[in-house]
Amino acid sequence: MEIRLIASTLSPVKLKIVIGCVFMKKKFHLSLFDGAGKTGGFDERLLNHALECLASAQAGKAACPDSLGWLSVSLWAGSGWLERYRELASRIRSRADAFVVVGVGGSNQAARAVVEALEPSEGSPEIIWAGNTLSAYEVRDILSRLKSKKSVYIDVIAKNFETLEPGVAFRTLRTFLRDAYGGSWHERVIVTGTPDMQLQDISEKYGFTFLPFPEDVGGRYTALTPVGLLPMAVAGFDICALAQGAADMESWLRSDTSDGNIALRYAAIRNYLYSTGYRVEMLSFFEPRLFRFAKWWVQLFGESEGKNGLGLFPSFASYSEDLHSIGQFVQEGTRCLFETFIDVEKPDAVLSPCADGIDDGFGYLDGLDYFQINKASYQGTLEAHSRILPCFNITVESIDEYTFGQLFYFFMFSCYLSGLILGVNPFDQPGVEAYKERMFRKLGK
Amino acid sequence: MEIRLIASTLSPVKLKIVIGCVFMKKKFHLSLFDGAGKTGGFDERLLNHALECLASAQAGKAACPDSLGWLSVSLWAGSGWLERYRELASRIRSRADAFVVVGVGGSNQAARAVVEALEPSEGSPEIIWAGNTLSAYEVRDILSRLKSKKSVYIDVIAKNFETLEPGVAFRTLRTFLRDAYGGSWHERVIVTGTPDMQLQDISEKYGFTFLPFPEDVGGRYTALTPVGLLPMAVAGFDICALAQGAADMESWLRSDTSDGNIALRYAAIRNYLYSTGYRVEMLSFFEPRLFRFAKWWVQLFGESEGKNGLGLFPSFASYSEDLHSIGQFVQEGTRCLFETFIDVEKPDAVLSPCADGIDDGFGYLDGLDYFQINKASYQGTLEAHSRILPCFNITVESIDEYTFGQLFYFFMFSCYLSGLILGVNPFDQPGVEAYKERMFRKLGK
Repeated sequence: MEIRLIASTLSPVKLKIVIGCVFMKKKFHLSLFDGAGKTGGFDERLLNHALECLASAQAGKAACPDSLGWLSVSLWAGSGWLERYRELASRIRSRADAFVVVGVGGSNQAARAVVEALEPSEGSPEIIWAGNTLSAYEVRDILSRLKSKKSVYIDVIAKNFETLEPGVAFRTLRTFLRDAYGGSWHERVIVTGTPDMQLQDISEKYGFTFLPFPEDVGGRYTALTPVGLLPMAVAGFDICALAQGAADMESWLRSDTSDGNIALRYAAIRNYLYSTGYRVEMLSFFEPRLFRFAKWWVQLFGESEGKNGLGLFPSFASYSEDLHSIGQFVQEGTRCLFETFIDVEKPDAVLSPCADGIDDGFGYLDGLDYFQINKASYQGTLEAHSRILPCFNITVESIDEYTFGQLFYFFMFSCYLSGLILGVNPFDQPGVEAYKERMFRKLGK
Repeated sequence: MEIRLIASTLSPVKLKIVIGCVFMKKKFHLSLFDGAGKTGGFDERLLNHALECLASAQAGKAACPDSLGWLSVSLWAGSGWLERYRELASRIRSRADAFVVVGVGGSNQAARAVVEALEPSEGSPEIIWAGNTLSAYEVRDILSRLKSKKSVYIDVIAKNFETLEPGVAFRTLRTFLRDAYGGSWHERVIVTGTPDMQLQDISEKYGFTFLPFPEDVGGRYTALTPVGLLPMAVAGFDICALAQGAADMESWLRSDTSDGNIALRYAAIRNYLYSTGYRVEMLSFFEPRLFRFAKWWVQLFGESEGKNGLGLFPSFASYSEDLHSIGQFVQEGTRCLFETFIDVEKPDAVLSPCADGIDDGFGYLDGLDYFQINKASYQGTLEAHSRILPCFNITVESIDEYTFGQLFYFFMFSCYLSGLILGVNPFDQPGVEAYKERMFRKLGK
């Protein structure tokens, strides 16, 4: 693993500020395009505050030390655990044609990000997402899909099993399994829950397979624990490569104490932008299959920072489609947002829109393939937007398991650090109690 | 059609301000929940300005009169046109098992909103969305889905056929059709384009079926024209009911000149909130199948208002899932957003999460069905959020074609009016040229 910094200046350069380029097994590159010079006021005082927070974050000493089980990748994604997830996954893969992940929010977003972005291998069970809605229409749809399956397994994932969505879905699915498989239905249930609480009790009583939902990891930080890794493995993806990408990122972000640390730069500058009046950060990408990754990212930052009347509102754009929707606002609307792009360096499919002799006005595209056209759209967009607003750019080599490991860890660590810089606890979510109290009262709880 | 106003006071009442209730064939109800009293400063001067804009909007005299072809529903969705769309759709339905809509932004969002929200009838062709991406990975996926189909028809929709996404998709699909159907391939192509421009020329030369993309309607206002209505009809939905819902809404919004007009209230108050520092409007709903409708809404408001450094950033939340993601921010984050809820009054599926005797801690739900539980979640959320931020609430009776007609027209008219109040041209999108110029240069155009 080679690590290299290209530049470490924070001075307000006019167009592109290269922040850092990390060579692990695969490149991970963060830069800042700021043609409008909006980050020019970032100064030594802010940097020193950020460096102090970085030291705390690297040491795992700041804010809720009992929520830092994700900080060391090896704790829940070391070789022993990985072997256990893979064994269980392999057993399920050999028997199931559908695997239902029953979970909401942090309990399913990381797995869904990976499963919906990567290409499933031949013969993998279909992954079905449940326990994330209370809509009768949606649940009926899930049940009708399950009825066409021969062998269904489910994984009920909940840190706190008071959450309504997985609770009612588990009820509905127990009935489904009992009707479909009779007395052996309980063999088809995996439970990922907090040890020594209700879900483990039920598991023992009814003979479900039990996996721990780490007590020291909040939902939105569970990508690299049984919560995220078991469903990814059942879907057939290489969780060892994913854990490696995360571990490589960890060893860089936790060891580099300099002001060239890319998590430091990202976290500090986004906080600076917030302090100067920016209110929205938009994660933008040109591969629509990153949609679910963006949803994961929105929860991570929204729940971690949105408290005490503070925080950037996290949003995302799936380009090029959304250039025909939100692009106008980004270019000319209220100056309240900045963008963070994810750029993928290598083509993941080779395809050309063939010329066929019809004069359709697109002759200038002859000889170009989709990857080149999409790349031109990305580059034109980054250039146009960064003349008006600050744009971070993260370049990854390809969309695969290793890259997801890098991305998960990079953003989790950056979010933790960013919360410390902002002065909030990045691990709690006290605000969700407000609607829950009122809802539970209406339901007679 | 009975029309009734329940209340028309603008005074800062402490919790709920009933704005207006319209009884057409089906109820459409707008109210404002503002426990925090944030709209209390709305005064006579603002109201008078809004009333002047309303008069202009109703008369169709303000801003770009050549973009108002959508204002009279009967112009492009009168009985003659509806008959024509239905005849063509019926011919396609009898022959196709897949219908590819090739369009991006305004050319596909309204149709997609309806098609992805309503339940398809038995034997309808599958609707496939193309021409909305430049990603090789996505296009390859579309082609592999088409290869399993027996009879594919396509509808190429573009106002300005310089747009890259539908342009390259049309190239790719022409090759696909020629390979699959030989000499008769051109019978399978419908083109919806601006009359007397390139797409019509090509249509005449190659014998495609041609429909007009109205010259006097911009993309994001085309729900009730051939652009939106043909794909909906091919998918098997009742476009006459949809046009009726829109026409009923039109006749109310364009005839009520009082300050009780619900479009006036919505447009004026959201502008007031913008002027006091709010930056984000979030469309929130508890039926996930409204996801594509929300995407349509984002484009409508983002492109119409996001210019001259102005405009609210439009976003959306698919609850209850997103309560576990962005809910924390809404409740306790930066005070920069307000919400507009869509509530559906009647259940659209009956389903209960059955009790099975296992003590899972959810005994308090025994006897409740999903609709009731989801409704409690909605009500708890609205109560909790509206104590902190202003919340509009739109109640519709059910999710069906008539309701979509109401919603499309309500939001298009409100957006037009809101743009006038804000002082921008709600029909242009000059900002998208910035990235296009740079992209075209890179592509050698």
